[in-house]
Amino acid sequence: MQLRQPEIDHLLRHWPVARLASRGPGGRPHLVPVVFAASGGVLWSPVDGKPKSGGELARVRHLRRHPEASLLLDHYDDAWSALWWLRIDVDVRVIAPADPAGDAAVAAAVAALEAKYPQYQQTPVLRQPPVLLALCPTAMRSWRASPQPLARTAPGSSAAR
Amino acid sequence: MQLRQPEIDHLLRHWPVARLASRGPGGRPHLVPVVFAASGGVLWSPVDGKPKSGGELARVRHLRRHPEASLLLDHYDDAWSALWWLRIDVDVRVIAPADPAGDAAVAAAVAALEAKYPQYQQTPVLRQPPVLLALCPTAMRSWRASPQPLARTAPGSSAAR
Repeated sequence: MQLRQPEIDHLLRHWPVARLASRGPGGRPHLVPVVFAASGGVLWSPVDGKPKSGGELARVRHLRRHPEASLLLDHYDDAWSALWWLRIDVDVRVIAPADPAGDAAVAAAVAALEAKYPQYQQTPVLRQPPVLLALCPTAMRSWRASPQPLARTAPGSSAAR
Repeated sequence: MQLRQPEIDHLLRHWPVARLASRGPGGRPHLVPVVFAASGGVLWSPVDGKPKSGGELARVRHLRRHPEASLLLDHYDDAWSALWWLRIDVDVRVIAPADPAGDAAVAAAVAALEAKYPQYQQTPVLRQPPVLLALCPTAMRSWRASPQPLARTAPGSSAAR
């Protein structure tokens, strides 16, 4: 059983966390939890980690070389009839804008992240140097255990309450 | 900041959900939420999907060919100081026992899954044909946002309450 389009749209706007799998060294997948916001038909995720010794994060270098990744939104619940997942194949572009405020797509992405996550009132979305991942969906697949309405937010989240 | 070994041991016993990334067709990672239980130094996850037209699931075929996978346990919380993740590189063995009850390692794995998940009182762990993934850890890395105590269970879960 699949998710319906309005549910998918709602999740892409409001679900607070996803897991991103990219190709890692030696072909073993690399897996990390990410926050993301939708803007301009793309899902945007800021890169948080600090590069070591001024170089680019290994993860980011890998994504430049192998942009084929996959993103999973899902809900775990003790009631297994409430389980669902949404898997989105994405091609990743690494965006390192020299002038984030002057780049309209980047400025909109940052605004979308700030609107979705009040936590960004404490810490800036973009670090120095600023890096964003633009996740461009290429395919989508979903599953749900039952037709019952989805949990509207992730447990532990008040994002869309 | 990393997780401490007693915390990792506790999570591997009690955390109810993980995400498994394996190598998919064309090198794009394949991502799926899984339940798992620890037994004999290995993490065991049952394969739920029904094979189409009697053949083996595409996912399982891929795992036989490319056993290098990665497993992520993590916690999302609106309070970002409570975030943590535990990433485990695993080599996957696909176990399709002809006689599950007669295979001691498989019988122990099934017992561990039944003990961890009361949901298996309703549905059998092993379907027909029975397939289990044995996830053998090869490396582990963790991160936490702060030294505060971890949430003891996943939101939505009462597994270790």
